[in-house]
Amino acid sequence: MVYNFNSGPSILPKEVFEQAATAITDFNNTGLSILEIGHRTDLFMSVLEEATALVKELMQLSAEKEVLFLHGGASTQFFQVPMNLLNEQAMAAYLDCGVWGIKPIKEARLFGKVEVVASSKDRNYTYIPKNFSVPADAAYFHYTTNNTIEGTQMHFIPDTQVPLVADMSSDILSTVIDFNRFSLIYAGAQKNIGAAGVNLLVVDKDILGKTNRKIPSMMDYRVHIENGSMLNTPPVFAIYVCLLTLRWLKKIGGIAAAEKVNNEKAALLYDTLDSLPVFRPTVAKEDRSKMNVVFIIEDPALEKDFLARCKQEQMVGIKGHRSVGGFRASLYNALPLKSVQVLTDIMKDFAFKNG
Amino acid sequence: MVYNFNSGPSILPKEVFEQAATAITDFNNTGLSILEIGHRTDLFMSVLEEATALVKELMQLSAEKEVLFLHGGASTQFFQVPMNLLNEQAMAAYLDCGVWGIKPIKEARLFGKVEVVASSKDRNYTYIPKNFSVPADAAYFHYTTNNTIEGTQMHFIPDTQVPLVADMSSDILSTVIDFNRFSLIYAGAQKNIGAAGVNLLVVDKDILGKTNRKIPSMMDYRVHIENGSMLNTPPVFAIYVCLLTLRWLKKIGGIAAAEKVNNEKAALLYDTLDSLPVFRPTVAKEDRSKMNVVFIIEDPALEKDFLARCKQEQMVGIKGHRSVGGFRASLYNALPLKSVQVLTDIMKDFAFKNG
Repeated sequence: MVYNFNSGPSILPKEVFEQAATAITDFNNTGLSILEIGHRTDLFMSVLEEATALVKELMQLSAEKEVLFLHGGASTQFFQVPMNLLNEQAMAAYLDCGVWGIKPIKEARLFGKVEVVASSKDRNYTYIPKNFSVPADAAYFHYTTNNTIEGTQMHFIPDTQVPLVADMSSDILSTVIDFNRFSLIYAGAQKNIGAAGVNLLVVDKDILGKTNRKIPSMMDYRVHIENGSMLNTPPVFAIYVCLLTLRWLKKIGGIAAAEKVNNEKAALLYDTLDSLPVFRPTVAKEDRSKMNVVFIIEDPALEKDFLARCKQEQMVGIKGHRSVGGFRASLYNALPLKSVQVLTDIMKDFAFKNG
Repeated sequence: MVYNFNSGPSILPKEVFEQAATAITDFNNTGLSILEIGHRTDLFMSVLEEATALVKELMQLSAEKEVLFLHGGASTQFFQVPMNLLNEQAMAAYLDCGVWGIKPIKEARLFGKVEVVASSKDRNYTYIPKNFSVPADAAYFHYTTNNTIEGTQMHFIPDTQVPLVADMSSDILSTVIDFNRFSLIYAGAQKNIGAAGVNLLVVDKDILGKTNRKIPSMMDYRVHIENGSMLNTPPVFAIYVCLLTLRWLKKIGGIAAAEKVNNEKAALLYDTLDSLPVFRPTVAKEDRSKMNVVFIIEDPALEKDFLARCKQEQMVGIKGHRSVGGFRASLYNALPLKSVQVLTDIMKDFAFKNG
């Protein structure tokens, strides 16, 4: 038994792995692999249609929302968003809460003006700025709902007059929120939606077509909407894994059911960390991420021992991101509560032996 | 037994399906699925390194060639190529040999001037233009080596003074050619390289960095080279399927061995079609594709019967592309000679009964 705390690509439900493996040798009793079926066949079209319908159902999207599965990962959205939404003389507002907040800002500057409305850089991105205001003349306001590397999460939706655009890569489908308040949502699939290699996009059609820029077909959201995510050969298998994961999420009771377990996992891990002086979570309490729990060991001399212990106990993905160090445990939807129980037991034992 | 003549996504070697399925439940005896491993772990880095090395070895690339695995499919390259190589006031030369020749021309026009040096539109794209000349002041010359839809293939490399850029999506790795004559090669993986969801790119570094355009990070070849195809989370599984397919190709004897079988398959199918008056291949003899054999039935009333017969005999993917009609049998590397033998036997029987 391996306990997988990877930050992404990350754990998916066991039944998703089993069903995906079956589909690779024989997809839906066709005698064909999912890897060798044409993307314009009924076989794949029904995969895409069901996945799209499940996204709408699980996220409770209103009728006018368009759902797309696109190539390129969230990093492609960093420039695709301003390419589609930001005129050269116009301004977009961005929130800077860490590595994944800075990257989209850099790309947006290639297309228009950017105003960074707030940043938590002053305290090493260990909190979420509040009480910032978004200028009413911004083309849109962009933020990252969960900062995978720094371990902060936005537990509120900012009140703005401008269209909201959010990178939800690392916490989408983990908590019930009003997704309809966003004009554009994007998320790399490889945390809560499925496997690496596809990007989920939810967009309001009416914010599109307002720039005067010439947009390449593959980058134009309107063209993808017209073609129903089938402008070119889509990442067939990655979309199929999304379908399997979405089916699992529906089966367990949807986002609300996942949230309940996510809350339990996060509470157990943070409570344990708070109770053991050996460890210290680095993020301000009210901004702690329920998906990525970032912590350090107060005595750096003990770091190696703890990592070795985790390895010995079959824990993977506990090491912090190369840019911040320390430790990180990612608690995505598919991670069982059991894994956190095992981890916290190890922590308590480690603290007892080194306390 | 299903005979898969799909044009892409298409058949892959049986052992690739088996190994891919195993990796989904337990990758390299780690107890983890290939879908849940971090992309910056040694586990995945060795997949990427081996796949890159195999591409260099099988294509016999010279040392200065850079090999990348990118998101987005070949259609993304339609604009990414001119975005990286074509200044707004400069001109690029393109060859127009059908649907996949026109699309890149349309995208290139967003970035600079395009000169179409030759087209086979006059005869419905059933041949490859020859004796065209490429202006010496073109930034590059772009063409499609194999036209998947129309069934034509370039059996020569044009002699030009400018950098050669080729979309080799549907015939890469199928025939021994001097890949080093190209400054940039791109190919969607889903025919001869692996599964849908990743793009192979081979590029000369010294043609890059010559435009004055601001290029988004995810679209800048130089940034991908600096980051070794790891600028963002790569399509992990799709790259792994490439590795398995490349290993298989090496095992059977490399491109030369695949070419030998490809020649046999194409000869058998075209000879059969030529010998049976019921059928007619649509493409000029010297330009026939060895990958995609396009043909019609002279009497349209028989079309339905032939399709029904193919279906009954477990043949899939025989129907022609929706834009051209008729029939198409795709004979990619992984298609066994046996499949063509079965197909031609059916054709002979069908011709006998309807002749």
